[in-house]
Amino acid sequence: MMPNHPRGAKSPRLTPKGRATRERIVAAAARLMTRQGVGGTTLEQVREAAEVSGSQVYHYFAGKQDLVRAVVAYTRGDVLEMQQPLLSHLDSLAGLRAWRDGIVAHQVSLGCRGGCPLGALGAEVAEHDAFARGLVAEAFDRWEDEIRAGLRAMHERGEFTPGTDPDALALALLSALQGGLLLTQIQRATLPLETALDTTLAYIGTRVRG
Amino acid sequence: MMPNHPRGAKSPRLTPKGRATRERIVAAAARLMTRQGVGGTTLEQVREAAEVSGSQVYHYFAGKQDLVRAVVAYTRGDVLEMQQPLLSHLDSLAGLRAWRDGIVAHQVSLGCRGGCPLGALGAEVAEHDAFARGLVAEAFDRWEDEIRAGLRAMHERGEFTPGTDPDALALALLSALQGGLLLTQIQRATLPLETALDTTLAYIGTRVRG
Repeated sequence: MMPNHPRGAKSPRLTPKGRATRERIVAAAARLMTRQGVGGTTLEQVREAAEVSGSQVYHYFAGKQDLVRAVVAYTRGDVLEMQQPLLSHLDSLAGLRAWRDGIVAHQVSLGCRGGCPLGALGAEVAEHDAFARGLVAEAFDRWEDEIRAGLRAMHERGEFTPGTDPDALALALLSALQGGLLLTQIQRATLPLETALDTTLAYIGTRVRG
Repeated sequence: MMPNHPRGAKSPRLTPKGRATRERIVAAAARLMTRQGVGGTTLEQVREAAEVSGSQVYHYFAGKQDLVRAVVAYTRGDVLEMQQPLLSHLDSLAGLRAWRDGIVAHQVSLGCRGGCPLGALGAEVAEHDAFARGLVAEAFDRWEDEIRAGLRAMHERGEFTPGTDPDALALALLSALQGGLLLTQIQRATLPLETALDTTLAYIGTRVRG
């Protein structure tokens, strides 16, 4: 398992203080990029928000692309951490519903702002930074793995009707979550997120043995 | 019904030639913004891609924000047009499947690049341009209306089992489409899109009277 906040290629060995400074830069960049997009965020804005000097930014990152990649790793850690421990109990309808409730409650607490930071990053980098796109793809793979583990456990316990593909259900749930979060961000209402997840959970319910 | 490519507030009356120039600028901006994001696209790049002078850009648009809003209207027209006439036949499982097949085939033809241009625009502008976010929200409302019309027709003909909410099914379908397109763009594979739509269609299938 990769650490949530891996160090950049440019800084193979950092002192605890150096690591804290680097993390402060990445956290500031992640906040800015979630709000105004990757392309709308300059290194100068990041420098200011993180309260470091320009030479410090360049000490830790070769350039903006390098920083964006660190932001992807950081955001992935953040997104997965936020859902723990609910993510590890997706092996029952009750656990799936609790996860759904947690995600909806989180959006309510955010006023439906921000959408999925990982999905937004992915959409923005996908067509012009193949490496960063690959990092986001890996992050989604890991997220999908976590959802799949619960559904596979249900499958292995014989809880689904014959012909049910737990992997497809996991991918459908992650897609519903992403689409629901996007529409919830754009509409500033949780209805799309709730409807997307509830519909997929209702379908999973139809596949559970009576 | 609003026209697909409404004129900007800054140019209430345009000659046919003026309209063509304006449209060339918006189309070039839409292409660039889909590839490199709104924040990553400068007016200078748009000017070059559209092969117009800087003063022409400023003749038609008060500034970048004004251009972004025109891009949203343009993209909305493009996205909805691309799905016609499949969108107007969503009042049967066969019609819904044909729409799904058309969307998947379109992604195959694009090599899974680009995702949903409207969703990507929405995610990028949502947190820093409330007016543009509203335009994207309206565009999604209209898209949802089109999907809902088919499902409501099925409902009115009594084709669903009691308790089925056709509006919820429409919103779930649009969410599945958005999430599936995003993951398909990031993974460069149509499996997420296919799985998301197929799962929602399978659920709709369980609600159709046998």
